[in-house]
Amino acid sequence: MSMIYLIGMGPGGPEYLTMQAIAALRKLDVVFILEKDGRGKEALSEARRQILDTYCEPGTFRIVTAPSPGRRPAGEDYLDVVADWHQRKTALIAGMIRDSLRHGEIGGILVWGDPALYDSNIAILHRIRREHLPALRFEVIPGITSAQLLTARHQVPLNEIGEDVLITTARRMQAGSVDGHSSAVVMLDSNAAFERIDGDDLDIHWGAYLGTENEVLVSGPLREVRGRIAELVAEQKQRHGWILDIYLLKRRRAGG
Amino acid sequence: MSMIYLIGMGPGGPEYLTMQAIAALRKLDVVFILEKDGRGKEALSEARRQILDTYCEPGTFRIVTAPSPGRRPAGEDYLDVVADWHQRKTALIAGMIRDSLRHGEIGGILVWGDPALYDSNIAILHRIRREHLPALRFEVIPGITSAQLLTARHQVPLNEIGEDVLITTARRMQAGSVDGHSSAVVMLDSNAAFERIDGDDLDIHWGAYLGTENEVLVSGPLREVRGRIAELVAEQKQRHGWILDIYLLKRRRAGG
Ligand SMILES: C[S@@+](CC[C@H](N)C(=O)[O-])C[C@H]1O[C@@H](n2cnc3c(N)ncnc32)[C@H](O)[C@@H]1O
Ligand SMILES: C[S@@+](CC[C@H](N)C(=O)[O-])C[C@H]1O[C@@H](n2cnc3c(N)ncnc32)[C@H](O)[C@@H]1O
Repeated sequence: MSMIYLIGMGPGGPEYLTMQAIAALRKLDVVFILEKDGRGKEALSEARRQILDTYCEPGTFRIVTAPSPGRRPAGEDYLDVVADWHQRKTALIAGMIRDSLRHGEIGGILVWGDPALYDSNIAILHRIRREHLPALRFEVIPGITSAQLLTARHQVPLNEIGEDVLITTARRMQAGSVDGHSSAVVMLDSNAAFERIDGDDLDIHWGAYLGTENEVLVSGPLREVRGRIAELVAEQKQRHGWILDIYLLKRRRAGG
Repeated sequence: MSMIYLIGMGPGGPEYLTMQAIAALRKLDVVFILEKDGRGKEALSEARRQILDTYCEPGTFRIVTAPSPGRRPAGEDYLDVVADWHQRKTALIAGMIRDSLRHGEIGGILVWGDPALYDSNIAILHRIRREHLPALRFEVIPGITSAQLLTARHQVPLNEIGEDVLITTARRMQAGSVDGHSSAVVMLDSNAAFERIDGDDLDIHWGAYLGTENEVLVSGPLREVRGRIAELVAEQKQRHGWILDIYLLKRRRAGG
């Protein structure tokens, strides 16, 4: 019986790995990597390489890579596009495991941040067990999410006392998901969607490339700082060819 | 100028600490501990002691403890009770830092899980700077939250594809906060509040004492398993004198 560890690698540098993740890395016989194309590709590969260099003995594991299946740009058909993409990723990873992981060996997939948050690997592994390799086992190893590094850097709690926290996407925020919430983390933006919402009573704590040498932080009343952040987004995309950003919106109390 | 590290210690064992947290621990001159009274006291102290034993050289740091101020039981006046409690904690910790941390030294506070999630230490440190020690600096070091260990153990993603995640409390859930959400993490329960909500279309992934030797996990359709989980809550509280539990509610899609 073979085993896959889905290892949360945190939001960037090797210092965010937990001891549990490091112990798992050291047991790996094979590391499976889907190489993304285009923007951000180098940063992700570089972070992964640095983590393996820091914690694993060279010569103790093999690396098996394949180009990640592309995803069609999504509009109204968002769920169909994602389903199609997952299906192709499932078949590809199942094939890689079948071809390269010998009986009783341990394989690993390094996941940005935490594997439970806006990442498809958990669903893909369940599907591989269902459709391809019923005897495969896997274990999920938590990692620090980008949301946690954001709040740590801004020294701000996720929740207001006794209240809820919403974690949402820029797409859903534009459809109103943040309305009525006192704290909301927005992910998967990169197009300064915070410029296009109603937010006179909101503060924003924004961060890009958290945990990397390019980290940028801005916070303040949304109305006052949104223009400057949008400029930063445009400027950083120009400079690096891509952006990875996240923000926490906090509603100011009436009269507070 | 003195410095405080607020160190996220994860949900239990030493294996959940990140390398960043361990590096911070090793720099500490003083560890500040507020000893809680009663239920769960031993477990928390024991986890903290085990982490210090695992990662710090004896003789390189001092421990300064004080009994944690009690919190009056809260009803309607929840926010007042919390404000009063924070005020007393602020004064106490400010005094401990002033009396025991010499100029230029580094102090540390170990926080269960992540310091940004349902924990008062970030707010207390801002207040200490405002009201007591303006020159004090502090840094927040993220830790794995109990919510992440819950999803890892159940091998379930936090979010459905492209959808939101709500993080809420049992108190807020009973006031309807989970309505309309496809994924909701409920914390701060311990009285089986999931028994008293409408939830025919919900699945529950429940866990108690995660990351400890007493870990218990149950999952299934809420309607079918809620009775069994409630029995477990009662039985475990009986056995250990307290319970630490958390759950993820997932709404089944219509027809799915
Ligand atoms: C596909 S999701 C993956 C999230 C990841 N699993 C986690 O736990 O953080 C990618 C989104 O996470 C956020 N993100 C991830 N890493 C980040 C970083 N280092 N700095 C800023 N945002 C980041 C951005 O919002 C990005 O659009
Ligand atoms: C005051 S909050 C602190 C949360 C913590 N800062 C975190 O990041 O997990 C305490 C609540 O967290 C949850 N919790 C913390 N540790 C847990 C564990 N090991 N197992 C289950 N639930 C836990 C429970 O819901 C508990 O009521």
